[in-house]
Amino acid sequence: MEEQFELIKNPQLRERVVSAHEAASWIEDGMTLGLSGFTRAGDAKAVPTALVKRAEDGEPFKVNVYTGASLGSNIDKMFAEAGIVNKRLPFQAEPAMRKTINSGDHFFVDQHLSHTSELLRASVIDSIDYAILEAISITEDGMLIPSTSIGNSLAFAEFADHIIIELNTAQPKELEGLHDLYSPGKQGERQPIPLTKPDERIGTIGIPLDLNKVKGIVFTHQEDSPSTIVPPDEETQMIADHLLDFLGAEVEAGRLTESLMPLQSGIGSVANAVLHGMIQSDFKDLVVYSEVLQDAVFDLMDAGKVNFASACSLTLSEEKMKQVFGDFEKYKDRLILRPQEISNHPEIIRRLGLISINTALEFDIYGNVNSTHVSGTKMMNGIGGSGDFARNARLGIFVTKSIAKGGDISSIVPFVSHIDHTEHDVDVVVTEQGYADLRGLAPRERVPLIIENCAHPMYREQLWDYYNEALERGGQTPHVLEKAFSWHTNFKEKGTMRQVVEHTN
Amino acid sequence: MEEQFELIKNPQLRERVVSAHEAASWIEDGMTLGLSGFTRAGDAKAVPTALVKRAEDGEPFKVNVYTGASLGSNIDKMFAEAGIVNKRLPFQAEPAMRKTINSGDHFFVDQHLSHTSELLRASVIDSIDYAILEAISITEDGMLIPSTSIGNSLAFAEFADHIIIELNTAQPKELEGLHDLYSPGKQGERQPIPLTKPDERIGTIGIPLDLNKVKGIVFTHQEDSPSTIVPPDEETQMIADHLLDFLGAEVEAGRLTESLMPLQSGIGSVANAVLHGMIQSDFKDLVVYSEVLQDAVFDLMDAGKVNFASACSLTLSEEKMKQVFGDFEKYKDRLILRPQEISNHPEIIRRLGLISINTALEFDIYGNVNSTHVSGTKMMNGIGGSGDFARNARLGIFVTKSIAKGGDISSIVPFVSHIDHTEHDVDVVVTEQGYADLRGLAPRERVPLIIENCAHPMYREQLWDYYNEALERGGQTPHVLEKAFSWHTNFKEKGTMRQVVEHTN
Repeated sequence: MEEQFELIKNPQLRERVVSAHEAASWIEDGMTLGLSGFTRAGDAKAVPTALVKRAEDGEPFKVNVYTGASLGSNIDKMFAEAGIVNKRLPFQAEPAMRKTINSGDHFFVDQHLSHTSELLRASVIDSIDYAILEAISITEDGMLIPSTSIGNSLAFAEFADHIIIELNTAQPKELEGLHDLYSPGKQGERQPIPLTKPDERIGTIGIPLDLNKVKGIVFTHQEDSPSTIVPPDEETQMIADHLLDFLGAEVEAGRLTESLMPLQSGIGSVANAVLHGMIQSDFKDLVVYSEVLQDAVFDLMDAGKVNFASACSLTLSEEKMKQVFGDFEKYKDRLILRPQEISNHPEIIRRLGLISINTALEFDIYGNVNSTHVSGTKMMNGIGGSGDFARNARLGIFVTKSIAKGGDISSIVPFVSHIDHTEHDVDVVVTEQGYADLRGLAPRERVPLIIENCAHPMYREQLWDYYNEALERGGQTPHVLEKAFSWHTNFKEKGTMRQVVEHTN
Repeated sequence: MEEQFELIKNPQLRERVVSAHEAASWIEDGMTLGLSGFTRAGDAKAVPTALVKRAEDGEPFKVNVYTGASLGSNIDKMFAEAGIVNKRLPFQAEPAMRKTINSGDHFFVDQHLSHTSELLRASVIDSIDYAILEAISITEDGMLIPSTSIGNSLAFAEFADHIIIELNTAQPKELEGLHDLYSPGKQGERQPIPLTKPDERIGTIGIPLDLNKVKGIVFTHQEDSPSTIVPPDEETQMIADHLLDFLGAEVEAGRLTESLMPLQSGIGSVANAVLHGMIQSDFKDLVVYSEVLQDAVFDLMDAGKVNFASACSLTLSEEKMKQVFGDFEKYKDRLILRPQEISNHPEIIRRLGLISINTALEFDIYGNVNSTHVSGTKMMNGIGGSGDFARNARLGIFVTKSIAKGGDISSIVPFVSHIDHTEHDVDVVVTEQGYADLRGLAPRERVPLIIENCAHPMYREQLWDYYNEALERGGQTPHVLEKAFSWHTNFKEKGTMRQVVEHTN
């Protein structure tokens, strides 16, 4: 207990320690909460759990829940099942919450991850009543030292009426000094963000707190939920190989050097596998500027491939967590964590000229990408940072397996059922079949590349049939509108996108 | 003739004067040209015309044509009709060329206007053989002083193998000193763009030339084509009024001051009318940071409403051109022209916190916007700068009339037939019916606002019918995919999007 109190170096704040139960009791029906947490890392754990308990005990209430991105620790699951959410933003990735979103039980606002802080700053979205932020300590001058993610916590602390801090003693103390907190300030009055290299520090090591707003401090001891990525399989390895071929060809053509440009890789197993594939490559002295660091980045550091990595969260498997935090000195000087407004800022992404790799649910023959909606209607996770990156990166790359459900779904379709990334923002698409380099190409030039290089052979003829019929009608982007979604409706009605061949003999 | 030569202050370059005919003769089949010109202003006129003459005389050849944006002086028309284009980018707005694009006679790459320079710099699109750039003079130290637009000319000059200059003596000499040329340099090596206010100068007054690349200088005397905008009508006035109501409410709510934020307004009659509507408003000390300055900006300056305007081109009606250039001292200190890479740069747009107003062709019940494709297939003009602005602006506003073709087309549809701006990037939509403020709203929250505030009354019930049927299927973004494009196919087959009511009695 004594030891715990030493984590609060500011004496004024030591008097504010309360139980999670008490802190949760301050939250009222209709309030808006700003929770720390980004891709299962650094989420507030105890107070949200205590809040759910109130609902389970029969109290009816609803709150708006803002976060960095997805939460771990079953928070979104508990929130969804307790039915206490009115509005959730800007991202989630939890099966139970997916259900409550898609059934319309509560609202979900799917935002570019760099935008949420701006919307708070401009008073456009509901202001935050309680920010609930995980920390590893509080400095003498009143700065909150975040844990394994920063997410939107800097903005939440600045714009919340009240702050509750969860001091999590299960998080590695070695994280102190890793963070770099910088706020761009008001639009119209701000200066350029002075970051010109991924390894530069431009801010403070913690979140400056208005001490008057800190209403309670709760001690917790609970590790982050480990990441749920699955290991690379044969197909993700093939995707990685094709991507490496493409990048190799860029080096060959003199457009990139063997240290490439700073790499961004989205959350998920496919993106992790692709990055992992770089261990076998000839590239070297790589640098990562991303929103989340998954296992692969540390494997690449261990392999001597990656020199430095900047992001806004560390999301590792259980095994990797043990290894990395067990030997953190080895990595500490080569890591920076930043607010997601900075890790995902268009200004920085374009200045640095990132190579951005994100996962698509499906893409169409013209290169439009659906990242979020199954059959155009059902939310999976959200757009996340993929739009921040793809639009502004030097290379916006999307990866996916060419088929799903044993071949009944083609990830390459005539017309995507929802568009998150338009033809203007998609440079290269990659499947286990190959890659299509769409840069500088008109829509009609893209079609053969996408069909022949990326679509699964079992769907190529069907895609050509659609395109050839569309071509007869003409246009910059030929389509047969009445058949544009027929692949999706066929899947719904017949269980497959494959055209049924009727034998007449 | 003597007088003309005095426009070339660099003595070395005086020897390079040739006829347009000769300059055009250097261009070979398969080459790529970079032409000055942005929204009918400052386009190279004589050499492109001479090049078309070669085709009219029976010579077969094709070239790639890169520009800033749309051209005036019938260049795109002549190019299209002569059949000499292989690939055109990044924007056009010419009826004859629209036809050749949509018939597939040549390729058209529809790009964000801030992206073209980056693609050239990164050697991603074909490099330029000849940059053909209009100028009003050449300084002694070899800088080209552009005329009424800058467009992509700075990048074209830097990355072209050869440069041909058209010195146009019909352009006002007073333009010298108006331009501010700044290149951000290579990605990964560049510094922040030091622009923090619309009226700051960060570069040089002209385009620095590599004198070895200047192959020819042609004298011309031809005014820009005047803008083709039509005066405000009753409906555009209503759109303007609704937009002013919205902005007034933002001031009321304390989110904006009466000088608003720097304004961007897209090309075209509707956007011009909306801006013009501000003359009658209570707003004052306005500043414009846009890609093109149309008549309305000067009317607002005359009315004492706008203090300063930055853009990359001046596109005026014949009458306004006479007035403005006849009394240019009055405006000169309050104008800056910049490269389109800077006028449209995400870094600057987000830093300044622009209010961005652009025209939609159609939008859907969830707020996705189609800016480019009629019935999802036929190109109108191109996305232009609307994506650069909407994504990064503080307020991304889209305007359109709620119906077209006497009511047979609804501009508000269940599912837009092409998406240029996703739900993530559209803050406010406005028609003559009213406005829908979509900020911070989930898809299901947006629907009633869009239908009730923006759709034409004759289509509201039909939109509700679609949405209610979709709701039964559920989802974050409910849709009835097999009917999603039925409005467009009905228009094609029956000439109207209106549902035919069948009377059974």
